[in-house]
Amino acid sequence: MGFFYFSSKDAQFALRLFLEGKSSYGIMALMSIIVAVDIGGTHLRAAAYNHNQFQPIAYKRVETKASEPNAFSRLIKVIEDIWPQNEKVDAIGVSTPGPVDPHTGIVMVTPNIKEWRDFPLTAKLTEHFGIPAWVDNDANLAGLAEWKFGAGRGHHNVLYLTVSTGVGGGVIIEDRLLQGYHGLAAELGHSTIQVDGPLCGCGKRGHLESFSSGTGIERFVAEQLNAGRESVLHPTKKNSAYMISEAAKQGDALAIEAYSIAGKYLGIGVANFLHAFDPSIVIFGGGVSQSGPLLFDSFEVSLKEQVIHPRYLDGLVITKAELGDDSGLLGARALAELKLQK
Amino acid sequence: MGFFYFSSKDAQFALRLFLEGKSSYGIMALMSIIVAVDIGGTHLRAAAYNHNQFQPIAYKRVETKASEPNAFSRLIKVIEDIWPQNEKVDAIGVSTPGPVDPHTGIVMVTPNIKEWRDFPLTAKLTEHFGIPAWVDNDANLAGLAEWKFGAGRGHHNVLYLTVSTGVGGGVIIEDRLLQGYHGLAAELGHSTIQVDGPLCGCGKRGHLESFSSGTGIERFVAEQLNAGRESVLHPTKKNSAYMISEAAKQGDALAIEAYSIAGKYLGIGVANFLHAFDPSIVIFGGGVSQSGPLLFDSFEVSLKEQVIHPRYLDGLVITKAELGDDSGLLGARALAELKLQK
Repeated sequence: MGFFYFSSKDAQFALRLFLEGKSSYGIMALMSIIVAVDIGGTHLRAAAYNHNQFQPIAYKRVETKASEPNAFSRLIKVIEDIWPQNEKVDAIGVSTPGPVDPHTGIVMVTPNIKEWRDFPLTAKLTEHFGIPAWVDNDANLAGLAEWKFGAGRGHHNVLYLTVSTGVGGGVIIEDRLLQGYHGLAAELGHSTIQVDGPLCGCGKRGHLESFSSGTGIERFVAEQLNAGRESVLHPTKKNSAYMISEAAKQGDALAIEAYSIAGKYLGIGVANFLHAFDPSIVIFGGGVSQSGPLLFDSFEVSLKEQVIHPRYLDGLVITKAELGDDSGLLGARALAELKLQK
Repeated sequence: MGFFYFSSKDAQFALRLFLEGKSSYGIMALMSIIVAVDIGGTHLRAAAYNHNQFQPIAYKRVETKASEPNAFSRLIKVIEDIWPQNEKVDAIGVSTPGPVDPHTGIVMVTPNIKEWRDFPLTAKLTEHFGIPAWVDNDANLAGLAEWKFGAGRGHHNVLYLTVSTGVGGGVIIEDRLLQGYHGLAAELGHSTIQVDGPLCGCGKRGHLESFSSGTGIERFVAEQLNAGRESVLHPTKKNSAYMISEAAKQGDALAIEAYSIAGKYLGIGVANFLHAFDPSIVIFGGGVSQSGPLLFDSFEVSLKEQVIHPRYLDGLVITKAELGDDSGLLGARALAELKLQK
């Protein structure tokens, strides 16, 4: 016989999972500990989670060191550092940026660890730790994390968009993560919304990302400055999306216009996604989505103009992500939990 | 004790369902007869299906008569005409064009029956027949039918596109029909691919449908003829998409260009959908998709140019729909079977 003491937040969390039918005595007994890993741009994070607690029971963060060799050994070391001593770990979940095949667990390329090319990450982890492992990309898993633990709780159809250097997507349909046949679904930044439009980071033209990402905002400002437009922004130095947002807050007309255009095209892209997925919530993550009315005033006007039927907006929640830096870890955790339940 | 005699096609069908795990002894026992209804533009069709047979055990087709009153009574009459005398019917499935809420069974508007406005179709059918009824729109159900009985058999992630007067979509994700929160998902013809592009039938601009539908092809030809371009096509009369395809087959440069442009934009749209859904098969239905190389030569070039990673095309099947006029009935049947299995 024993008693478990939860913090108030954890008790609420366990109760909510139970009430939402995402947890039951049987599942609790099956799933004790999940190890989650987030291979981020600056930091490699690992944590161990007890299924009934929101907070990790162990957590470690080290620098990613993208160009150093022996990345897999360094990864193993971080995982071992947070591995629970006296409890069984059931599965490992991993979040990584860049193209990955979640069905085979092969990381094709990741900017954060240069030596990995078609690297069989989950097979290697399973070989080492003797338990199942799953991987998916960071945007998909941030969406999954927001659905399970964040702003999307209680929703069954979720559209998550990260608006940052690029634009990425994660989609939940009827409580399942949209992955696709090759595991490449929800690459929503790479939707053509203007044939022969501006160049995108991927090499194609006119994608949503080429208009509404930080890079797109910077490109527009650079073009206008080159054409001789007046602004408080420096005409030859690189102006970051953040610097542009600061200039906009000081009333700079060019900076304001740059964000307004990004918001307008974001509304066009999101209308397309409403027509495609018809979610009940749209969640925005990423640095550029922190710009408030600068971006979202024109976004709202444009979204309302573009939807083909007002019913798409009935009860639709549009909100910000809640989980911040932990979304990768929590998404990796949610992925492992979801796969174990299958 | 008794023996059931199947035709060879039906025996193969039952075996396939069983092997694919879509049928089992338990489900067979649960689901004996489904009644399917297709409210089409010219004909109202109804059929009764035994779960183990591909061919209907009863079938009737009458004219739709969109503007006549008492549509529901006429519908009831057609259904009663094919209702099996000595067997239990488990559910009714209905296919209808136009916006419908599959979650509540309310037909908002349908061009084929003008008197129905926010008409609670499934509730009325259940009230009359005492069994559950489900409804969804024709493009979704044609996609579902192709997945279960047609070109998409054995695939788990299917993108169906009908290219006809308009462009419609139906999407299957991991063996489930994508319906969305309001039941309005997969309205894929209404994806903006060219901001401020040509006017679409829905009143917005630059949608895939405004370029690649029969209407889009006709619009392009009319514009070019108005501008004085030479062609065998009549400069003032209306040229239908079919007439334009005939002119193209005779070598008319304008007609050839009209189809080629439609195919190019269709490739751009489908690339967007691969990035969003990542299916293993793309199935084309609808009259305009019967145009062969006229449409699909430029489509293929454009699709290959537009995908952001060649992996989307690995093993991807691109093919024509198999079910023709019966796709509405078979989709309505598949919907009812799917819902009963839940």
